[in-house]
Amino acid sequence: MDIKQGSHVDLMIAGGTIITMDENRRILEEGNLLIKGGRIQAVLADDQVPEDLTAEKVISARGKVLLPGLINAHSHLAMTLFRGFVEDLILDKWLNKVWEYELSVVDEKAVRAGSRLAFVEMIKGGITCAHDMYWHFKETMGLAEEIGVRLISGPPITGLGDQDFDEMFQVARETLTWMEDLDFVYPVLQAHSTYTTTPRMMRTVRAFKEEYGISFTTHASENQDEVDNVREQYQKSPIELLSSYDLLDEHTVLAHCVKVDEGEIDLLAATGTHVAHCPESNLKLGSGIAPVVDMLEKGINVCLGTDGAASNNDLNVLGEMRTAALLQKGVNHAPEVLTTDQALEMATINGAKAYHLDHMIGSLEAGKKADVVLVDFQQPHLTPSFDPVTNLIYSAAKSDVDTVIIDGKVHLEGGQLTRLDEERVMAEVRDLEGLFDGR
Amino acid sequence: MDIKQGSHVDLMIAGGTIITMDENRRILEEGNLLIKGGRIQAVLADDQVPEDLTAEKVISARGKVLLPGLINAHSHLAMTLFRGFVEDLILDKWLNKVWEYELSVVDEKAVRAGSRLAFVEMIKGGITCAHDMYWHFKETMGLAEEIGVRLISGPPITGLGDQDFDEMFQVARETLTWMEDLDFVYPVLQAHSTYTTTPRMMRTVRAFKEEYGISFTTHASENQDEVDNVREQYQKSPIELLSSYDLLDEHTVLAHCVKVDEGEIDLLAATGTHVAHCPESNLKLGSGIAPVVDMLEKGINVCLGTDGAASNNDLNVLGEMRTAALLQKGVNHAPEVLTTDQALEMATINGAKAYHLDHMIGSLEAGKKADVVLVDFQQPHLTPSFDPVTNLIYSAAKSDVDTVIIDGKVHLEGGQLTRLDEERVMAEVRDLEGLFDGR
Repeated sequence: MDIKQGSHVDLMIAGGTIITMDENRRILEEGNLLIKGGRIQAVLADDQVPEDLTAEKVISARGKVLLPGLINAHSHLAMTLFRGFVEDLILDKWLNKVWEYELSVVDEKAVRAGSRLAFVEMIKGGITCAHDMYWHFKETMGLAEEIGVRLISGPPITGLGDQDFDEMFQVARETLTWMEDLDFVYPVLQAHSTYTTTPRMMRTVRAFKEEYGISFTTHASENQDEVDNVREQYQKSPIELLSSYDLLDEHTVLAHCVKVDEGEIDLLAATGTHVAHCPESNLKLGSGIAPVVDMLEKGINVCLGTDGAASNNDLNVLGEMRTAALLQKGVNHAPEVLTTDQALEMATINGAKAYHLDHMIGSLEAGKKADVVLVDFQQPHLTPSFDPVTNLIYSAAKSDVDTVIIDGKVHLEGGQLTRLDEERVMAEVRDLEGLFDGR
Repeated sequence: MDIKQGSHVDLMIAGGTIITMDENRRILEEGNLLIKGGRIQAVLADDQVPEDLTAEKVISARGKVLLPGLINAHSHLAMTLFRGFVEDLILDKWLNKVWEYELSVVDEKAVRAGSRLAFVEMIKGGITCAHDMYWHFKETMGLAEEIGVRLISGPPITGLGDQDFDEMFQVARETLTWMEDLDFVYPVLQAHSTYTTTPRMMRTVRAFKEEYGISFTTHASENQDEVDNVREQYQKSPIELLSSYDLLDEHTVLAHCVKVDEGEIDLLAATGTHVAHCPESNLKLGSGIAPVVDMLEKGINVCLGTDGAASNNDLNVLGEMRTAALLQKGVNHAPEVLTTDQALEMATINGAKAYHLDHMIGSLEAGKKADVVLVDFQQPHLTPSFDPVTNLIYSAAKSDVDTVIIDGKVHLEGGQLTRLDEERVMAEVRDLEGLFDGR
C-alpha cells in the first residue's frame, strides 16, 4: 500500500467490515477504503492509516459491510416496462406475447424510460455494472454514460432470415465505432440465440469477434424445447452448434445453460466459455435449474444475471445470490455445495472475469475502479452477525444497501439516490402512452 | 355492510387497493377499511362510505396495497439467536451442532431476547401471527401477549426415552391451563417429530388432543434420512407412523413433508391433514423440495412457514411466497403451476385454516380481527404495476411493508415500529452472555 504521510484522497470510507473479494479473499474488520481519481488507492486496516491523511469527504462505515459493486451479467434492462405483464407462461409462449407487445409500445422514448427505471432499481440494490441486450440499445448506452453507471452492451444480432443482413451488420459496425467514445459502456457482440439467428449471421459474428477483439454473448440451452428444436433443425444442440461456429472460447458468455449435459459441460470447461446463470428467471419460466455445481466443479467461470424484469420480476443480484445458493443445496440434497463465498464470487469477480473487466472491477483492491457498496448491518434481520458473508447472502435485503459508489462518485447515500430523481423516473414510466393498453 | 349514517370508527384506512382474500377473492381498487373494537367493521368501495362517517384516526392508503396479516405457520422464533451460526451442514449434523449450542446458551432470558427480535423482524415484514415451537416457550408466549401479536404455541413433547414422561405431560397440562388467560396466544399440542418421541408419548398426545379439543403439530418427513431411519426403527414411514397413532386428521398440521410419496399425499388429503411448507429451510438444509403442486391438486391445505432463522436465515413470509411459487414452476418445468393467488392463499387464509383460526384471521372481511398490512407500491421495483398480487409476490420486498395493524392496533407505521424499540431489542441479543463463544 503506497499511502504516504501527508496523503490527500477524494473519499475515505472509514471503519467498516471490508469483504475485498481479492485473490486471498481477505476480510478486514474495521477496515478503511481510500479513493482518489475514481480509483481505489488503498484498503487499509485501522492502524495502517497515516495519522495526517486528509480526505475531501469521509463516510463512516461503522456497522456496515463493504463489498465490490455487484455485477448483473445478463439482463434486458428496459424490460422493466413489462414487469408482471405476462405471467405463468412457458418460455416460447411468453416470448411471443412479449414480442407482440414490444412492437406496439417499445420506441426510443420507452426504452429510455424503462432503462432509467432499471438503473434506479439496480443502483439502489448495489449493482454498479450491468449487461444489457435490447432494442434501441443506444438509448440505454447513452443513459449509462450520462448517469455514470457501467454497462456491458452492444448491437444485438437477430433475425430468422438474412434479408436485413447487410443493414444489421452495418449498424453493428457503426455502433461499435460510436461506442469508442463512451467511458462507462463496454462493448460486447451479441446474438439473441442459435434459434433466432442464421448460420451466416453467426459466422459473421465470429469474424467480427476476431476483428474487434471483443467478447461475445448469447442465450443458450435455456430450456428443453429450445434444445429439441435446435437439434431438429441443425442435428446439433445449441452448445454443439455454437461450437461448430467456433464461438466457444474464453471470450464468450452464454446465458442460462439450463439444459446442458455432462459432455457439454466438459466442452464449456475445456474452451473456457463463461456461463451467466439466471436462477430466478429460469424457475419462473419453468425452464428448470442449471447444473451449476457441476459447472463450478469442472472449473467453469459462472456469473449471475437477473435476466429481464419481465421474467423475474425484479433486478436484484443480492436476491439471485441467495436463490442460486439455496437452489443448488436443495436440488443436490447437499447443503455444503454452492457456499456463500462462491455465491458472492459469482455476483462480483466472476462477472468481471466473464467480460474481461476484472483488471478494473469485481474486487476491492488498490488500483481498481472505485465501485463500492456499503450494506447497513444494523438491522433486526441481520442480528446477530456471526459472519458477514453468510449474513450478506442469506439475510440481507436490497433495502439494506446504504451507499453505492461508482467510479469514485456517490450514487446512493443513506439509501437515497443522489443523481437520479426516483419519483420522476417512476412517473415517466407510468405515463408512457399505451403501456397499460395491451392487458 | 352495516355501516349506518353517523357511524364512528376507531380507524379508517382510506383509498388503497384491498386484496381481501375473502371467498370471492375480491380486489377493491380505491377501497376503504373500517376498524372498530379491534375488528374489521367493513370493507367499502369509495362510493359506499357514508358521508358523515367519523374516525378516531385515518390512515391514507393511496398508492398502497392492503392485505391480511401474513401467517408464519411453522417456526422456532428464538432461533434468531443462531442466525447464520451453523452453515452448510445436512439436517442431522446441523441439528446436533445447534442442540449442543442451545444447551450452553439458551435460558429464559436468551429466549425472551431472541423471540423479541423475531417479533420485531416479523412485524416489520408484515407477519401478524406466527407459530412457535421452542424451549422456555412461556417466555415467548408472555412476550406475544405483552406486545399484542398473535402466536400459535404450546408445550413441546420430545425425548428419546420415557424417563421424564410424567413431568413433561404435567408441565403440558399446567401450561395449557395457564394459557387460558392469554388473548393473543392460541394453543396447539406439539411433538418434535416421530424420531424424537416415543410411541407412548405420541399416544398420550393423541389422548390430550381429544381431551382438550385442540390442534396438533409436528415435523414430518423433512428429508430422506429421517424417512429411512424411522422406517428402520418402526417399519413405517413418519406419515404411516403418525397414521398408526391416529394423529392424521383436520386438526393436525405437519411441517415440511418433503419426502412423501403419492400414497402418503393421498392419505394426507383423505384425512384432511394440513401441511406447513417451509421451502427455503428445506433448500438450505439440503432436504429437498416438497411436492406442493401434487398436494394442492389433491386438495391438501398447504400453508407457509419460515422455519427457524438458523436454517433460512430470516423470518420473511413475503419471501417464502416468492420462493414457493418460483420453485414449483422450476422443478415441475411448468410456469403455470403455483400461481401468485395460490401463494398468497398459502401465506394468509390457508395458515388460518390449518390452525382453525379462519373465523378470526386470514382475510379482510367484516367481523374478522383487524390484522392488516399495507405495502407501499410507490417503489421503482414495483413500477409499473399491472396486477397487485403479481407485484406483491414477485417484486415486493419486506422493506416495502409500510403499516402493520394487529387487532386494530398500529404496530408499524411508515416502516417504523410503534410499540417496540428496535435498537434496544438488537442490543439485547448482541449483549447476551456467551452467544458468540461457541464459534
